[in-house]
Amino acid sequence: MDIGPLVIIGGKEDKTRTPEILLQFVKLIQKSHRRDVVGVVTTASQLEEQVFRTYQHAFEDIGMVRVEPVIIDSRAEANAPFWYQRVTELGALFFAGGDQLRITSLLGGTVFDMALHQAFREGLIIAGTSAGAAMMSTTMIVEGEQDDIPTKSSVRLATGMGLWPHTVVDQHFTQRGRLGRLLAALAQNPGVLGVGIDEDTAIFVDQDREWLEVWGSQTVSILDGRSIGESNVHSTPLGQPLSITHVTLHVLSKGYGFHLKTRQPMRVEEEDSGEY
Amino acid sequence: MDIGPLVIIGGKEDKTRTPEILLQFVKLIQKSHRRDVVGVVTTASQLEEQVFRTYQHAFEDIGMVRVEPVIIDSRAEANAPFWYQRVTELGALFFAGGDQLRITSLLGGTVFDMALHQAFREGLIIAGTSAGAAMMSTTMIVEGEQDDIPTKSSVRLATGMGLWPHTVVDQHFTQRGRLGRLLAALAQNPGVLGVGIDEDTAIFVDQDREWLEVWGSQTVSILDGRSIGESNVHSTPLGQPLSITHVTLHVLSKGYGFHLKTRQPMRVEEEDSGEY
Repeated sequence: MDIGPLVIIGGKEDKTRTPEILLQFVKLIQKSHRRDVVGVVTTASQLEEQVFRTYQHAFEDIGMVRVEPVIIDSRAEANAPFWYQRVTELGALFFAGGDQLRITSLLGGTVFDMALHQAFREGLIIAGTSAGAAMMSTTMIVEGEQDDIPTKSSVRLATGMGLWPHTVVDQHFTQRGRLGRLLAALAQNPGVLGVGIDEDTAIFVDQDREWLEVWGSQTVSILDGRSIGESNVHSTPLGQPLSITHVTLHVLSKGYGFHLKTRQPMRVEEEDSGEY
Repeated sequence: MDIGPLVIIGGKEDKTRTPEILLQFVKLIQKSHRRDVVGVVTTASQLEEQVFRTYQHAFEDIGMVRVEPVIIDSRAEANAPFWYQRVTELGALFFAGGDQLRITSLLGGTVFDMALHQAFREGLIIAGTSAGAAMMSTTMIVEGEQDDIPTKSSVRLATGMGLWPHTVVDQHFTQRGRLGRLLAALAQNPGVLGVGIDEDTAIFVDQDREWLEVWGSQTVSILDGRSIGESNVHSTPLGQPLSITHVTLHVLSKGYGFHLKTRQPMRVEEEDSGEY
């Protein structure tokens, strides 16, 4: 059994007029051998009922019949033994936005977390938007300043949910001017791949076939730090501007993908799009 | 006689508390064999008197005794024959901020423009901030959206004053989220060097020795488009997101420079700093 695909959305995906990303996500579920049920995880937000209803309507409008709430607001709830069974009955999980620290602090290390990873290894499709995108990587960005230069203190990192290792994912990327904070994260370990996803834009990640594809209306910025020649992050005091040389930057829009192993961009043919 | 050095400032340089950039500019004039006089060009602004007084006070506060107004508000004034003589009597020109199109449309092709280039070839030191920075390159960015992704229409270009060929200079760079518009400019001709200068940050450019050095408190982003593997700028409709791969990005702060010929970043020793 293959590992499940990820759909990582940069926030503010169109839910009504041109819900291209949600449509492609639903198509992915329908094409899979999994049950036609999406569970909406609202843990990132404290307006869980409202968030759930928004996505329930959005998914129902585009033909997804079964949309279920996954409302977990405490570690006790996340540790309920029934999650092992419950998660396997879902075709996909969709992590809505809010605060990524709520996701990791409430879910990290619980029964739900373990059930999630087990089902993911067996093909569970997992999507997340905004905070639900940030939490995907092993190391996640908690906060940082908008339109700020890279400094050692311009980004605060924490351990993410580890669904997509060796990466740091940032969201609302161009719209909130987050290049500086992603560069600051990258400088601390150029081995990870920095992935900045714009609003109403997503990446479909197939870790088995080691590639990703861009969906949606804006762009995805991929920062490859392996080419970094020099950075002074280790010797620079907090708050002082960093210097980082030879970062390789790819800005990709729909029609483009990226090989994760060779770290090379690629064109994606229409007929391959979303194949899984 | 060597070509004059350029001091290109990303706007909002500190004028009172830590006027590091203005101090280094004044030191440059004092070390040169030129007269100790700076002419402040206020053409970019319609508040010429106010702009002049601001810089007069700033320069006088740091020990520059002779600060002269160069107030040109029409092409007729710019075509006065005395500029040939007048410009040679200055040690340096400082272009204040405002609208770069006022600079190019009022000065381009006039006697002042020709006098400026002649004196520059003979060592005149030229500084510019904000609009006065943007106009330095041969092709200049006129406008573009903040925090926007690169699209063919996200940037509008015009012919600059051509003091620093083969480059596109942008300013207020990180603070106004201008990566997208500089990438869009670069994609249209990856042969130019894209240089994004932050506020209270400058580059000292020595075109004879083919290097630049970073001054000030923030960072300079250098985008080398020669490594671009693929861009779809030629086939993408206006307003649609561009894809641009393999851009080489250097983020440099004080203590770093850049070889213009080899296009490689370099460290700058304290004792070399500002040498000319």
